[in-house]
Amino acid sequence: MYTINENYQKLPGSYLFSTIAKKVAAYTESNPQKPLIRLGIGDVTLPIAPAVIQAMHKAVDEMAEASTFRGYAPDLGYAFLRAAIVENDYKQRGCQISEDEIFVSDGAKSDSGNIQELFSQDCRIAVTDPVYPVYVDSNVMAGRCGVYDSASQTWSKVIYMPCTRENGFVPEFPKETPDIIYLCIPNNPTGTTIPKTKLQKWVDYANAKGAVIIYDAAYEAYITQEDVAHSIYECKDADSCAIEIRSFSKNAGFTGVRLGFTVVPKALKCGGVSLNAMWTRRHGTKYNGAPYMIQRAGEAVYSKEGKAQLKEQVGYYMKNASVIKEGLTKAGYEVYGGVNAPYIWLKTPGSMSSWEFFDYLLEQANVVGTPGSGFGPSGEGYFRLTAFGSYESTVEALGRIEVL
Amino acid sequence: MYTINENYQKLPGSYLFSTIAKKVAAYTESNPQKPLIRLGIGDVTLPIAPAVIQAMHKAVDEMAEASTFRGYAPDLGYAFLRAAIVENDYKQRGCQISEDEIFVSDGAKSDSGNIQELFSQDCRIAVTDPVYPVYVDSNVMAGRCGVYDSASQTWSKVIYMPCTRENGFVPEFPKETPDIIYLCIPNNPTGTTIPKTKLQKWVDYANAKGAVIIYDAAYEAYITQEDVAHSIYECKDADSCAIEIRSFSKNAGFTGVRLGFTVVPKALKCGGVSLNAMWTRRHGTKYNGAPYMIQRAGEAVYSKEGKAQLKEQVGYYMKNASVIKEGLTKAGYEVYGGVNAPYIWLKTPGSMSSWEFFDYLLEQANVVGTPGSGFGPSGEGYFRLTAFGSYESTVEALGRIEVL
Repeated sequence: MYTINENYQKLPGSYLFSTIAKKVAAYTESNPQKPLIRLGIGDVTLPIAPAVIQAMHKAVDEMAEASTFRGYAPDLGYAFLRAAIVENDYKQRGCQISEDEIFVSDGAKSDSGNIQELFSQDCRIAVTDPVYPVYVDSNVMAGRCGVYDSASQTWSKVIYMPCTRENGFVPEFPKETPDIIYLCIPNNPTGTTIPKTKLQKWVDYANAKGAVIIYDAAYEAYITQEDVAHSIYECKDADSCAIEIRSFSKNAGFTGVRLGFTVVPKALKCGGVSLNAMWTRRHGTKYNGAPYMIQRAGEAVYSKEGKAQLKEQVGYYMKNASVIKEGLTKAGYEVYGGVNAPYIWLKTPGSMSSWEFFDYLLEQANVVGTPGSGFGPSGEGYFRLTAFGSYESTVEALGRIEVL
Repeated sequence: MYTINENYQKLPGSYLFSTIAKKVAAYTESNPQKPLIRLGIGDVTLPIAPAVIQAMHKAVDEMAEASTFRGYAPDLGYAFLRAAIVENDYKQRGCQISEDEIFVSDGAKSDSGNIQELFSQDCRIAVTDPVYPVYVDSNVMAGRCGVYDSASQTWSKVIYMPCTRENGFVPEFPKETPDIIYLCIPNNPTGTTIPKTKLQKWVDYANAKGAVIIYDAAYEAYITQEDVAHSIYECKDADSCAIEIRSFSKNAGFTGVRLGFTVVPKALKCGGVSLNAMWTRRHGTKYNGAPYMIQRAGEAVYSKEGKAQLKEQVGYYMKNASVIKEGLTKAGYEVYGGVNAPYIWLKTPGSMSSWEFFDYLLEQANVVGTPGSGFGPSGEGYFRLTAFGSYESTVEALGRIEVL
């Protein structure tokens, strides 16, 4: 008689964004005449850049001819894409990362969820609080988080590093020593960053404690301040303690195109066992590569035209971020983020809870955002808005919020 | 101090096809003038069908315009694709499968590897022997297989169901009762099938024992005999004991395009817990959908033009299968498969081991195949050839083998 993985039963409720989607669908059904503006989920709205579209058409044509057709891709991804990544994301920033340390995937969400498989079940994870829900949920599914306490909304074995206005949303070294540390910088959901000097301290801490850092750099393209690192490998000795996860979703609008990659340095070893070799084995056994056309799309992101077009896209969203930041400030809100990230993190007014503010904004302004509490207990009393809408709808949304 | 998932260390050697690729690369480097014919890995060679190419171009164009751009896909896959699957693969075969039981993915390999996550660690798996290596390897990584014995090449906790010429390559009910039964029909690597009446017995057995069947139907498009089921849901009460995994790689040549789906019926429950709900949660947490353009490509597979074009492709490969089957028989080999599957399974001559025959064929005929022992201990003394080469190279390969 088979039995199920009981860890799944421990997960409270459904995935955050599924809950929001259901709530919004119910509201729309009851109020079909109300024009909603969605600044909730981190989904982009600008179409794919021309250079990328052109590359995809070309690759589709190649798949139509026997002489240029491609079957199974190399396990780690095509060399043309890994070379472009190494050159642009690492070499040009002075990071010593080689092609066989790059693992192309179908996106950062899959990699963020799967990477925990490399570690033993008794490893203790540390997460910033609030944080992208996938880190904790995927560890819950693997039985690494202990028992959930619904009153405090915390897991018994997870080490939380609260990020609140009191500490400027910057995590402090935890009291208990973690084995695996998840850092997302620029942060989702708070939109905050730390300077490279501070990141170096985290690398030194991890190396000293024998911890591994899972570094989610999905939003690096939005960094505007010079003292913020784009890759953790800009820090000294990060290759012996850090795995970096990258996405094409936010810098190139690939949320529906699906492409990402993970860097597992060969220097990253646990008692002589190479994590690069382990991740190679996982890719070889449980994954069969991203589509050829999509890998060509990724290559085009690094072309001269692609870079110029995507710089404009990022600029467009960051203009939205300014609109939100300024509009909310004008309306009397306490606002964070939006400088090095497409996310605005605001304090809910008075003693309103995150979900109360979600309902208030949905009903009074017909604007959809994301309740901060959905990202962790320290997110309670906060709220996330994203800069990924159109400029016009963002201006309209802020107009509605300002007159509330 | 973090520690690794020690189960990875138990895996002997590398993934089968990576080993072959390395061996072939070494031979090619030493013998650059020898023209190799690759009938080893199950990778297709015909280009993508025109109807599918057209659908992909159209979808790429949609991604280029703000009004038709698509971001994150629905968790389970686009409704247009799931509707086409339900209609063509299930309704037309009399199977009661609904759209919310279909989970679109990036391919059958990922699903085959990930599906075991739904089950508890102490579940005992049963596999036919020989078998597609992913089933066992993914369970080893999850700690479900016990200890590896290199002499017998078996895992202490895995229940093997030998498929040899003595039993016509048809698995018998195992002596020990399994919790999870992997069945791949038509079989990879032996190319054999069982009639629907016999599959019904497996369904009845699973329901009686409280076991779940993971049914891999990746090769269903190659079935030519009328009494072989294309889906396990053609059997009575299969929805309460079976998960079906399907691929677009072999029926539509999507090995480099990447698309598959898994069916988890709502009737499949373990002590009241819905496995459909669990798989929904996994998709929501660790996956973000297949690319929009690729899902449109999948939809085109079911169009009138797509169906006609792909029927021709399958016919082309099955003609190769005949060439191999007849050629080998003429050359005095003992040959199986090739009737309902693109795989030919042959007995190695004399007392030659599978790897000895691999080297022999590589060196004497410059033909690459797959050693049967790579698929499990009962595969020793057998060898797999695939029908996925071009017609010309298949004829040439058989010509070389016949004169050995």
